[in-house]
Amino acid sequence: MIVIIRPDVSKEKIEHLIKWLGDKKLIVKEFHGREQCVLGLIGNTKLIDKDMLTSLDIVESVSDMTETFKASNRKLHPDDSILHLASGDGPTIGGGSFALIAGPCSVESREQIISVARDVKDAGANFLRGGAFKPRTSPYDFQGMGSEGLDLLLEARTETGLPIVTELMYLQDMDEFVEKKIDVIQIGARNTQNYDLLKELGKSTRAPILLKRGLAGTIKELLMSAEYIMANGNENVILCERGIRTYEQDYARNTLDLSAVPILKNLTHLPVIVDPSHATGRADLVPSMTLAAIAAGADGIIVEVHNDPKNALCDGAQSLTPKAFAELSVRIDKLRDALK
Amino acid sequence: MIVIIRPDVSKEKIEHLIKWLGDKKLIVKEFHGREQCVLGLIGNTKLIDKDMLTSLDIVESVSDMTETFKASNRKLHPDDSILHLASGDGPTIGGGSFALIAGPCSVESREQIISVARDVKDAGANFLRGGAFKPRTSPYDFQGMGSEGLDLLLEARTETGLPIVTELMYLQDMDEFVEKKIDVIQIGARNTQNYDLLKELGKSTRAPILLKRGLAGTIKELLMSAEYIMANGNENVILCERGIRTYEQDYARNTLDLSAVPILKNLTHLPVIVDPSHATGRADLVPSMTLAAIAAGADGIIVEVHNDPKNALCDGAQSLTPKAFAELSVRIDKLRDALK
Amino acid sequence: MIVIIRPDVSKEKIEHLIKWLGDKKLIVKEFHGREQCVLGLIGNTKLIDKDMLTSLDIVESVSDMTETFKASNRKLHPDDSILHLASGDGPTIGGGSFALIAGPCSVESREQIISVARDVKDAGANFLRGGAFKPRTSPYDFQGMGSEGLDLLLEARTETGLPIVTELMYLQDMDEFVEKKIDVIQIGARNTQNYDLLKELGKSTRAPILLKRGLAGTIKELLMSAEYIMANGNENVILCERGIRTYEQDYARNTLDLSAVPILKNLTHLPVIVDPSHATGRADLVPSMTLAAIAAGADGIIVEVHNDPKNALCDGAQSLTPKAFAELSVRIDKLRDALK
Amino acid sequence: MIVIIRPDVSKEKIEHLIKWLGDKKLIVKEFHGREQCVLGLIGNTKLIDKDMLTSLDIVESVSDMTETFKASNRKLHPDDSILHLASGDGPTIGGGSFALIAGPCSVESREQIISVARDVKDAGANFLRGGAFKPRTSPYDFQGMGSEGLDLLLEARTETGLPIVTELMYLQDMDEFVEKKIDVIQIGARNTQNYDLLKELGKSTRAPILLKRGLAGTIKELLMSAEYIMANGNENVILCERGIRTYEQDYARNTLDLSAVPILKNLTHLPVIVDPSHATGRADLVPSMTLAAIAAGADGIIVEVHNDPKNALCDGAQSLTPKAFAELSVRIDKLRDALK
Repeated sequence: MIVIIRPDVSKEKIEHLIKWLGDKKLIVKEFHGREQCVLGLIGNTKLIDKDMLTSLDIVESVSDMTETFKASNRKLHPDDSILHLASGDGPTIGGGSFALIAGPCSVESREQIISVARDVKDAGANFLRGGAFKPRTSPYDFQGMGSEGLDLLLEARTETGLPIVTELMYLQDMDEFVEKKIDVIQIGARNTQNYDLLKELGKSTRAPILLKRGLAGTIKELLMSAEYIMANGNENVILCERGIRTYEQDYARNTLDLSAVPILKNLTHLPVIVDPSHATGRADLVPSMTLAAIAAGADGIIVEVHNDPKNALCDGAQSLTPKAFAELSVRIDKLRDALK
Repeated sequence: MIVIIRPDVSKEKIEHLIKWLGDKKLIVKEFHGREQCVLGLIGNTKLIDKDMLTSLDIVESVSDMTETFKASNRKLHPDDSILHLASGDGPTIGGGSFALIAGPCSVESREQIISVARDVKDAGANFLRGGAFKPRTSPYDFQGMGSEGLDLLLEARTETGLPIVTELMYLQDMDEFVEKKIDVIQIGARNTQNYDLLKELGKSTRAPILLKRGLAGTIKELLMSAEYIMANGNENVILCERGIRTYEQDYARNTLDLSAVPILKNLTHLPVIVDPSHATGRADLVPSMTLAAIAAGADGIIVEVHNDPKNALCDGAQSLTPKAFAELSVRIDKLRDALK
Repeated sequence: MIVIIRPDVSKEKIEHLIKWLGDKKLIVKEFHGREQCVLGLIGNTKLIDKDMLTSLDIVESVSDMTETFKASNRKLHPDDSILHLASGDGPTIGGGSFALIAGPCSVESREQIISVARDVKDAGANFLRGGAFKPRTSPYDFQGMGSEGLDLLLEARTETGLPIVTELMYLQDMDEFVEKKIDVIQIGARNTQNYDLLKELGKSTRAPILLKRGLAGTIKELLMSAEYIMANGNENVILCERGIRTYEQDYARNTLDLSAVPILKNLTHLPVIVDPSHATGRADLVPSMTLAAIAAGADGIIVEVHNDPKNALCDGAQSLTPKAFAELSVRIDKLRDALK
Repeated sequence: MIVIIRPDVSKEKIEHLIKWLGDKKLIVKEFHGREQCVLGLIGNTKLIDKDMLTSLDIVESVSDMTETFKASNRKLHPDDSILHLASGDGPTIGGGSFALIAGPCSVESREQIISVARDVKDAGANFLRGGAFKPRTSPYDFQGMGSEGLDLLLEARTETGLPIVTELMYLQDMDEFVEKKIDVIQIGARNTQNYDLLKELGKSTRAPILLKRGLAGTIKELLMSAEYIMANGNENVILCERGIRTYEQDYARNTLDLSAVPILKNLTHLPVIVDPSHATGRADLVPSMTLAAIAAGADGIIVEVHNDPKNALCDGAQSLTPKAFAELSVRIDKLRDALK
């Protein structure tokens, strides 16, 4: 249920109403637009007398919200969300900013991560990505450097000033991620419906969460997973399209679903970014898919760059060299200018 | 790498070899057939001198195992696995036994679960299913009765003697499931690649794990998830086909992939069961899909039965009435006789 | 729009009404049940005054038919259709009969087709299948023996008495198929929406048409394609599930969608058969999928049998040997007995 | 098999070799690069003595072509194909030109088609699209104006000078399309594997064929269908990505597979265009998907424009108004400038 408050109503009166609604066991989400305030009621709204609510002098109108999405819904929050890093410093995400996130699939060594970090920074990246904990389909594959990898990422951050984006896989590592002030916490495709983890991300941190779409996840499921985080307290969610599983598997690993970008931008106020590296699995397709994603309206790109793709411990075939990334970065700027 | 030991080699000699291999940081899986023993080596087998190994007098032959699956692989373990409940009592699963698992989607009340438990037992079920913790796409939907539901299931077990099958969703509930001696622990489709949970299921319990295929999971991924459990110590895994996500969505919720049954039976020694209720989402399709699953070679069926489907809190449309289940049970027996 | 006629209304009165409706440019389908007649009106039914129609003394009731399917709809024609071969002789299809259709993918020589025909007849097949015109994705692949193959099939029919099932690919071959009295004309998956061909099959013949589901066709599309044939005059259509294209491609060519069988049997009065050979592409999966299809309620099976699978010109990997087919046939009989 | 001829070999010698190869029942495709000539041999190349061929003094090298695609293969024809209209006049397609094809789904009346034609021309379109023969899943739906619609398109061509693109559905209409000199003949998604039609398009015309990908067609199948046309004599084929059928169906009709654009451009020398209207089924998604397609490297766009989308007889929801199209056209120009 959505309650639109009249303009110029005092804060006290609104808080009074919120308290009364809270007593009815409803969760109340408060959205402040430029002139008016909107309340979104979540829970058993059948307990509320809608006519009575409408008749209150501070209420402009009440409407049933048949929408499945609540906290993430653009109808309740028409302006783009602008996400800030936990530190308060550094680049913002969404609302016109562009996130160019680049780095290796896995952190492999001090030399590697710092070298790549410098290269991508020079080429224009404003975030460094790198995996310390790697989700692998097989328990027998390389699972990442773990905590040590995380520390190397922090060193690279100190060296370059680039905020870091890295994946959290396990609930028990949450505290470490929070303590080490990881700038953006990534949730991978396999964990998109790991509600355990999602709830904890809502409760334990305010760091932006980069939430990937499931391997064959629907758009609805992606938004509902964002709701799990947001309903538990952390509204800083970045949605990431990363290719979906389809019957077409001969020439690319997944099918990059770029229409998801304008669809999501229409449904939600959250920023939407694209991962062309995992979607295609082929470095030669990354530049054209990056440009296409930006033309489709993406708020950012997360792309794999490796100083030595042929010898990468993981996903080398989809990694750009620093040189190819630098060239792409120039084309991105030109394209973004033209789209303004 | 697979090492086939000559017949009639003494236990001591084999253990000696296993110790030596273990010192090379390899995980050694031991499989005892009727006459011979086979060792499966997992890890960096490049460290081993294959020629040297072959020349040992206790070794018949050594072959590189290019197979992705190891612990679950039928090549290493040609006979069907027969799974026992943790208590040692009760029905076994796999190897010719048939698991007829029935009960409501959710535990809703003492009366409901005991009434359904009695009905399904009378009709021939040998396991009771029921959800206490429910995975829901939306955080705003009914999430199950939790611990209280678990206790009601235990009561129903006491009343009827039927072992229970129920879903574990959260890592933090693992201890409760182990303490309460849940007979079979179900892992739902959304958690199939929650490696956190899978590893813990390997370490903390020897109870059979009923592992559902992902919403759009491949057969390979299902087996690799079983490997996560098995490689961590619990070899009692039941695989469950429950419908896959395809483009066809007009008449059934998912597409039940029955060819997965003979494919899995061919690849692995683990028992394979089928869930026609979630696959189709329609009670009227459950009987024919149950019979088809059995004809395809399934080791069991998990099916939803509710005493009052129209008023079920969850998934009523796919639940059989106790009467319809009793009729189906008669047809199952007749069919199983004919297939012998 | 559906018009249900009162019982005991004279033929003349019904014909009078049909003529009047026909003058309104409506197509009128007449369905005679045991006691009553039902008229299905196709076209712009907005031109009809429904109240007036309801008030006629020969009319029991009138209802808007929102159903997409008309001629094939079970609501209009509750009893199973029973299809007869054009000759009037030979086995019927549907309504409790079982069609066991077997033979090679392609006709390769006189010896081959007659040898296989004898083998499958001895094993219990009541139809012989064999391709003379082969649809191939590549224009550079073997395209079948053409007319010569058709003549060899006719010889095999004379030798064994088995009616034949063979694929028509090209419009220009229609006359030849009609003249040669091909018993059952197959339309392959690639031609399921070749409306040119479907219309002509409605106009030029009354032979049963075995219509395969498209490579990634929906159930709705399959029925609409049947409507193209039926609306043009030939109501003898057999629907065939043959596997659908999904993301799972590692272990079987397609995903056999067996829930389509009860779904179709519920929606339409037309017979529904299953092709486990093309669906799986693997001979070892054919027996279990055949049994599963029958348990799911299929009215028949079309299966590939080749006297020398390893040297078949086409699809050898999915062909049973005559011996394996004979064993399967015994199991089919046993299963069908149990399901009665 | 590919035979690379030495530079500076005389035409006569090459023709002599081609004749000799033709006598061996091989189809020989001749490709002239800037300096050298390459022969592609199609058919049973086992009959050829490869060593003998290699030893000829006019031959530089011979290699087995394991490629599935032949006539369409970029390896044999490294430069982009540039397609000319049958008339020789008008815009070319491919090789750097951009085809902006716009118009209504169906031709509905003289006024409508001429009005839209003028609007799209003014806005920058260089081709007019419009359906006279409409493929419809249901035989009971509007099937287009037929020949009369074709004549109205020709009138619109005379009025505006825009060449026309329109769909051929039925073999029997081929002569009419050829006589009326339809500039570009479209083959719809349902006919992509109608080999009857494809072969005839190879034999009867040299007009460019706009070939759409199947509803759930693979990239391989699309190219093989192009081969059916090309191997029969017409090498003027335009490939069109139009969305594929996937599990995601909540927010767009199909999933537009934009990575197919760079993949196809890499595999083949044929032009590749994109249809964002049918792919998404939603006018509001068309502009962003158009821009994304261009950024992905498409050689053109085919987009639906209707003067009165709400009252369109077909596909109104996906049609742009002329005003929206004009705005999009400005953005296309700006984007193409930036991508140069």
